[in-house]
Amino acid sequence: LSLKSLVKFSNKTSYVNRGLDLESDINITNKFYLDTNKAVIYKKPTPISVIKVDYKSKKSGLIKEAYFETPSTTDYNGIYKGKYIDFEAKETRSKTSFSLSNIHSHQIKHMEIVKSHGALTFLIIRFTTLRETYFFSIRDLMDFIKSSKLKSIPIDVIREKGILIKDRFNPRVDYLEVVDSFYFGGKK
Amino acid sequence: LSLKSLVKFSNKTSYVNRGLDLESDINITNKFYLDTNKAVIYKKPTPISVIKVDYKSKKSGLIKEAYFETPSTTDYNGIYKGKYIDFEAKETRSKTSFSLSNIHSHQIKHMEIVKSHGALTFLIIRFTTLRETYFFSIRDLMDFIKSSKLKSIPIDVIREKGILIKDRFNPRVDYLEVVDSFYFGGKK
Repeated sequence: LSLKSLVKFSNKTSYVNRGLDLESDINITNKFYLDTNKAVIYKKPTPISVIKVDYKSKKSGLIKEAYFETPSTTDYNGIYKGKYIDFEAKETRSKTSFSLSNIHSHQIKHMEIVKSHGALTFLIIRFTTLRETYFFSIRDLMDFIKSSKLKSIPIDVIREKGILIKDRFNPRVDYLEVVDSFYFGGKK
Repeated sequence: LSLKSLVKFSNKTSYVNRGLDLESDINITNKFYLDTNKAVIYKKPTPISVIKVDYKSKKSGLIKEAYFETPSTTDYNGIYKGKYIDFEAKETRSKTSFSLSNIHSHQIKHMEIVKSHGALTFLIIRFTTLRETYFFSIRDLMDFIKSSKLKSIPIDVIREKGILIKDRFNPRVDYLEVVDSFYFGGKK
């Protein structure tokens, strides 16, 4: 076995074993970007509506009743190469398409608005069963919504219009490499 | 009474009556900026660590046990004039100084890092009793921390180094006007 195939093998093994979801992979990737001073990007906390708090409990407040809220923006934002970056990441078990029901309409609206203000904004879509993760631009998303009546984006469209994000050991989901080629390298 | 003094009077009255805190004022201001397409800036949700969820309840998940977490970044971020903007807003009842204990050390660290990446980053500090709200730059914050052993920034320092944000009807806390003069107008 060559070193290259060993690395490949070990990557694959660790992928199988770790069983991490897209969110965890992106969080680890963002940590890597922060540690290497490449970018400062965080996942926003999940919005939660707090109803009852027990202030008598030991440490700070213990929340006794609360509800998950629908997010009004995307999950991730931050700064990269001096630019505001803002994206949503979703995974699907489907092998054939990505359902648009995965993204709220106000999230799409939000991405359109920040794009008009000069943001780098896009989707990261993972087909978990196929182990394929794609960068999909907001422009292509809008084009699809406007030109198609389908409620799902067929994987062929995503493979053609999107850009495959390589699966690596570290960073795990190196989406900034694709951002570089899409926004800064003039490719695509 | 002239129209001008009427407006002034009504502003003052509404200020007294509304009893809104700084967070609410900034949220309303951000809504105004969004509606007028000036900027896209949101408050991040409060980070909450969820322990127990009752999935049997009617609407989505009812959270039965959760805790407030310490935020690792600032509360507000977004995009303005194509730039990444990132700030923290705090209010104090003190009439004499702003205690540095109001800001976590990792929040200061975060602001230093995003600044080095080209972000517009600063503090908004309100003295509620005095009804004075200031823009205070991260540079001045760092200078103070490095040069002083005080655990609080005296109000005189904030009045001298900071910039007063005028209290208005709409937008209520027009901090972008100050951001304009500080970052884009070359003032200060």
